[in-house]
Amino acid sequence: MPNRTITAPNGFVAAGLHCGVKQSGKPDLALLYCPTGAKAAAVFTTNAIEAAPVTVCREHSRSDPVYAAVINSGNANACTGNKGLAAAKIMCGKVGKELQIDAEKVLIASTGIIGHQLPITKITAGIATAAGSLSDSQTAGLNFAKAMMTTDTRAKQAIETINIARKTITIAATAKGAGMIGPNMATTICMVTTDAAISRPLLSKAFKNAIGVSLNHLTIDGHQSTNDTAMILASGLAENKTIMKQDAAYQKFSAALSDVCGDLAKQMALDAEGATRMFKVVVKGAARKDDAFKAARAIADYDLVKCAVHGGDPNWGRIVVAVGSCGVTLDPAKLSCKIGDLFVFRNGKPTHFDAKAASKIISQKKHTITVDLNIGKYQDFCYGCDLSREYVHINADYHT
Amino acid sequence: MPNRTITAPNGFVAAGLHCGVKQSGKPDLALLYCPTGAKAAAVFTTNAIEAAPVTVCREHSRSDPVYAAVINSGNANACTGNKGLAAAKIMCGKVGKELQIDAEKVLIASTGIIGHQLPITKITAGIATAAGSLSDSQTAGLNFAKAMMTTDTRAKQAIETINIARKTITIAATAKGAGMIGPNMATTICMVTTDAAISRPLLSKAFKNAIGVSLNHLTIDGHQSTNDTAMILASGLAENKTIMKQDAAYQKFSAALSDVCGDLAKQMALDAEGATRMFKVVVKGAARKDDAFKAARAIADYDLVKCAVHGGDPNWGRIVVAVGSCGVTLDPAKLSCKIGDLFVFRNGKPTHFDAKAASKIISQKKHTITVDLNIGKYQDFCYGCDLSREYVHINADYHT
Repeated sequence: MPNRTITAPNGFVAAGLHCGVKQSGKPDLALLYCPTGAKAAAVFTTNAIEAAPVTVCREHSRSDPVYAAVINSGNANACTGNKGLAAAKIMCGKVGKELQIDAEKVLIASTGIIGHQLPITKITAGIATAAGSLSDSQTAGLNFAKAMMTTDTRAKQAIETINIARKTITIAATAKGAGMIGPNMATTICMVTTDAAISRPLLSKAFKNAIGVSLNHLTIDGHQSTNDTAMILASGLAENKTIMKQDAAYQKFSAALSDVCGDLAKQMALDAEGATRMFKVVVKGAARKDDAFKAARAIADYDLVKCAVHGGDPNWGRIVVAVGSCGVTLDPAKLSCKIGDLFVFRNGKPTHFDAKAASKIISQKKHTITVDLNIGKYQDFCYGCDLSREYVHINADYHT
Repeated sequence: MPNRTITAPNGFVAAGLHCGVKQSGKPDLALLYCPTGAKAAAVFTTNAIEAAPVTVCREHSRSDPVYAAVINSGNANACTGNKGLAAAKIMCGKVGKELQIDAEKVLIASTGIIGHQLPITKITAGIATAAGSLSDSQTAGLNFAKAMMTTDTRAKQAIETINIARKTITIAATAKGAGMIGPNMATTICMVTTDAAISRPLLSKAFKNAIGVSLNHLTIDGHQSTNDTAMILASGLAENKTIMKQDAAYQKFSAALSDVCGDLAKQMALDAEGATRMFKVVVKGAARKDDAFKAARAIADYDLVKCAVHGGDPNWGRIVVAVGSCGVTLDPAKLSCKIGDLFVFRNGKPTHFDAKAASKIISQKKHTITVDLNIGKYQDFCYGCDLSREYVHINADYHT
């Protein structure tokens, strides 16, 4: 089986292991290393309360090159004051020491419970072990992915290869999802590797765009965490002519990167806490681009719509109510709504439809809800998932 | 037992019965009549998609005097086009004919499923029966309250009496709640009666204020319906000197009206779909009044906080995250949070607290979460309730 993990692009070795943060004994420490150094870009949460690793990573991501990234799960190191900030720096320092690189050239992210201090001794010991077991194997890449997980039930991997002037470029990515996910910047922890040779500004531009059309179009519970971080490292070892301007090669790279991140977003929706199905909301005919996204997100975030999807119920009234209450410009008499290809509401009026067929569509693992505002030319979308009793169970019983 | 229903103030008779809208056989038609005519005021949903009865009631509420109000449950008459608008007018027309008053002097509201045409023949027959059984008895008032209910498990009643210059004024109210409730205008169907003599502009002012500090500070699922309507009728039969300016009598009336509506809001939170407990979020120390409410509502609306409350889990991290992501001005280092009287987070740092005691507080039927932004002087609050598996059950299985 070909390697589909973040160690697939040339130039990366990884490790993932259990160091003792999680009581379950599951993997909780992930390390990525690019010995030749990499161009880096990152996007972060816009929550006003940001976790210590976000503060540190924001600074370190300005380094050129960046050599490594360290991620722990089981503890978010958020709302932990100066002690938490010191702990995040100790993590980067330990990675630097083990790999003999500057601490400032190490990216960092944490995910898990908020408000608890990190068990830093366990983590630094884990970093030493991880540094000693780095490998470019598929197993190492998968271990990295698993060590980022919290309530995820499976590791998420996405990969694309493209050819630019007969050189093969690989882009691979992994992300953790599950809960506390709403669209605003990264909405998760996401690690992307590529062997493309590309300038830092263009890497950053392509990455922001890719996250913009993928993870930022995903809502699981509308909640934006303190720790959302997406990072990309580009080793340049594909030996393509370095992408320096927005030419055809850049467009190709950018499109592939967006595809990889879009693939992850869909995997995250399907593996959301308690989710049994995902849906894509498309809003078209909006007077403004912002309106199209606002309405799509409002529908995807609407608990009553999410419950209806969970029950396989084509309750379009809730979709229309969500649009009406989200503050976008609309004309009630022009509004139409489709479930799959089936009109359920047309030009502001209920329309006869086959309820059984609509229920069948909305009960599928993946389906699309389309709302046409019919007053403009703008369109956008949002991915969402159903709301189940299991979501409540997971989040009522995940005790501090 | 004294009459605590909307027939308690002088001048009102009511009826409530089953006319055939609900398949369950439960009451679904409510009629209120004030033979001497009443000053009226009303507030409505701000959802861009408003139901037909809202459009009609908006117009009729400008009449002076108003004589009656008709409400049906089981069908919202929303998203029903011109046919729905005609049906709402037929309802008012039928009430007018039965009571020999102008149709324009009849208020109207509907609640229930969206997108289905009203069974208007059943409703007009029901109006005829209701008009023949109007009474000022407690039973009649209770029947009226029951006929407004959808997924409510019990009727909600609130009453206050005040004395103004030795005249006794009574204010009574009922509301339906349960689901699709978020704070913006009325957030429900609410009917208030009083025998106060008061000018129309002051009645309107006091009512807007009362709804503003009660129903508009309640969120059950953040969802604002197409049908939200709150109405008040003032018969003037208490024979107090008509309240014509904002004097002490007005202040007394206004405060009592706010108390009645606040009492209803709390009853609605406790009887929310699937709810097992309610909580009040108080946000203080905000730089702006708007910020205080925005943060309080963000916390009360946050599914992860609602799940934590359901699980009796003092997971303050989720409270802090909700504040951080809602866009209010804050300084992370100054933020504090209390559960009941227990500090759980202080000046941006976790603080040691008795987790068992905090869990006990958050497991109570009613409790208060306080967030102090510590950067300004403004304070506001919001009522919320827990999110349970039962909410999902009700809303995944309430089929179209």
